Amino acid sequence: MSVHCVALSGGVGGAKLALGLSHVVPADALAVVVNTADDFRHLGLAISPDLDTLLYTLAARVNPDTGWGRSDEHWHCMEALEELGGETWFRLGDRDIATHLVRTARLADGARLTEVTAELRAALGVKTRVLPVSDDAIATQVHTDTGVLPFQEYFVRRRAEPRVQAVEFAGAGDAQPSPEVLAALQDARLQAILVAPSNPWLSIDPLLAVPGFAAALREALVPVVAVSPIVGGRALKGPTAKIMGELGLTQSALAVARHYQPWIDGFILDTVDKDLRPDVEALGITVHCSNTIMQTLDDRIELARTALDFARDCGKAAR
Amino acid sequence: MSVHCVALSGGVGGAKLALGLSHVVPADALAVVVNTADDFRHLGLAISPDLDTLLYTLAARVNPDTGWGRSDEHWHCMEALEELGGETWFRLGDRDIATHLVRTARLADGARLTEVTAELRAALGVKTRVLPVSDDAIATQVHTDTGVLPFQEYFVRRRAEPRVQAVEFAGAGDAQPSPEVLAALQDARLQAILVAPSNPWLSIDPLLAVPGFAAALREALVPVVAVSPIVGGRALKGPTAKIMGELGLTQSALAVARHYQPWIDGFILDTVDKDLRPDVEALGITVHCSNTIMQTLDDRIELARTALDFARDCGKAAR
Repeated sequence: MSVHCVALSGGVGGAKLALGLSHVVPADALAVVVNTADDFRHLGLAISPDLDTLLYTLAARVNPDTGWGRSDEHWHCMEALEELGGETWFRLGDRDIATHLVRTARLADGARLTEVTAELRAALGVKTRVLPVSDDAIATQVHTDTGVLPFQEYFVRRRAEPRVQAVEFAGAGDAQPSPEVLAALQDARLQAILVAPSNPWLSIDPLLAVPGFAAALREALVPVVAVSPIVGGRALKGPTAKIMGELGLTQSALAVARHYQPWIDGFILDTVDKDLRPDVEALGITVHCSNTIMQTLDDRIELARTALDFARDCGKAAR
Repeated sequence: MSVHCVALSGGVGGAKLALGLSHVVPADALAVVVNTADDFRHLGLAISPDLDTLLYTLAARVNPDTGWGRSDEHWHCMEALEELGGETWFRLGDRDIATHLVRTARLADGARLTEVTAELRAALGVKTRVLPVSDDAIATQVHTDTGVLPFQEYFVRRRAEPRVQAVEFAGAGDAQPSPEVLAALQDARLQAILVAPSNPWLSIDPLLAVPGFAAALREALVPVVAVSPIVGGRALKGPTAKIMGELGLTQSALAVARHYQPWIDGFILDTVDKDLRPDVEALGITVHCSNTIMQTLDDRIELARTALDFARDCGKAAR
């Protein structure tokens, strides 16, 4: 199958779909635009959790138990850091630290995050383009009942326990999409844009919060198809459902479709949610029902095929 | 034995004597002033090789095979760094990296190197004061037949192979000794200053290149006793003898005594060099002959006792 596509992705869920896509379409026909609003500086290191999850997953070096971090990982540095009284709430594996050292050093040299990411993926043998949405800093700030928390403070240190009142993407309004992201969206061969089953409020919203990215997405004139990250009223991973409740939303795939409604054409509901089809269609969104749970590599490849086929159908329907 | 003393030290050789001293005198009677001209930034990390060798040695966490780096060390980060095409010529162990992360983060917070070192030694349970000679940056530049090389480029990356023409300590002339170093030298209880068997040209000279340190040393009015790092015409470790040859000096303890002559009172020759005694004494320096090779902890303690006894004798002789 050679469908030129761009996928929008957060971390673990997005990486699964991206891996599936990388098995289905040629490398030059796929670009993954990745959330960078979770990025932060920690212990002096420039850390980009979602980019790394994409790189490690596509390089077959991801920890299979967690879906993030490196496989065959060790924790001697953290052990020593704990002994020294350093901050250990954000767990950095010994191998993983190498990625942060390289990124930090290259950024200090003046390289763009996009360039550094391209260097890392070349070193790891990843052919799929993995593109930070922007080379400008974007930082998610979570407004909670215990104050405004930087994303990793909220997500990792506080285990997403504080109640979310609002989510802000500091810097996004002034950020420019990278030239590489614009080129991917403006590629004349582009046939589909897929939204991976990532957290809409924490992983996909930051992409749309970059005005130049949102504009390029509108102008792409190809079907935009999203895979629901909510299945049977629950998030497959992470605090998506919890946050929806805290934001006063029904914990349902329908609420996700409603959230994406202004800019998507198609929505993939999990089969267990097929009863929601009429409600989603009432939003003017084409619906496809399918298994969306990606436990095996075959599941990832199957969902990638399904999403691409569906996007093609959405495109025909629009004509 | 309660002899208040200050020891001047580079890395491995100095750490051995410091460890011996720490067994012989109470913690509050000992301060080790350490070379910082080998310090550098690498992969964004603030690395202080000699300070770390002192800390790890005094904390009984040093690699016993090398005399530097941590014991029970692992190299997963370097493995991953190599895979990523990063710079691996300076080997950073997984545990060791924690020290650099803490130091880098604390310096970025605005802490002085002396403060960070005190925090690290407290965390490691080291009671002996380990004092960087200055909180200001000093950087050894080695002028060689293949150009001017930053110290670690010369020493580690090029394995001290280029021929040395001159050694420069960039920043030393403008550096201030730390208040803690001045306090140690100006302590009314001070009875001796010991110069560890470190490399005179690379480890001890940078201390003296700090004008305020040299002045405080002159004003201390206690015996200054040096242990020869050259035994039987050879350096016990590292390129000291090779550099002496390249600088046009005889590879002999006598040349070291001559180099130190303006500011030392006593010199400890290894027993194998006892024939040099008259020549060193002719420089106006009191001489003691002793075993100076520190293979075991007992050797370290024995040499520490010998040096302190000898310093006391030098003091009596001066009166």
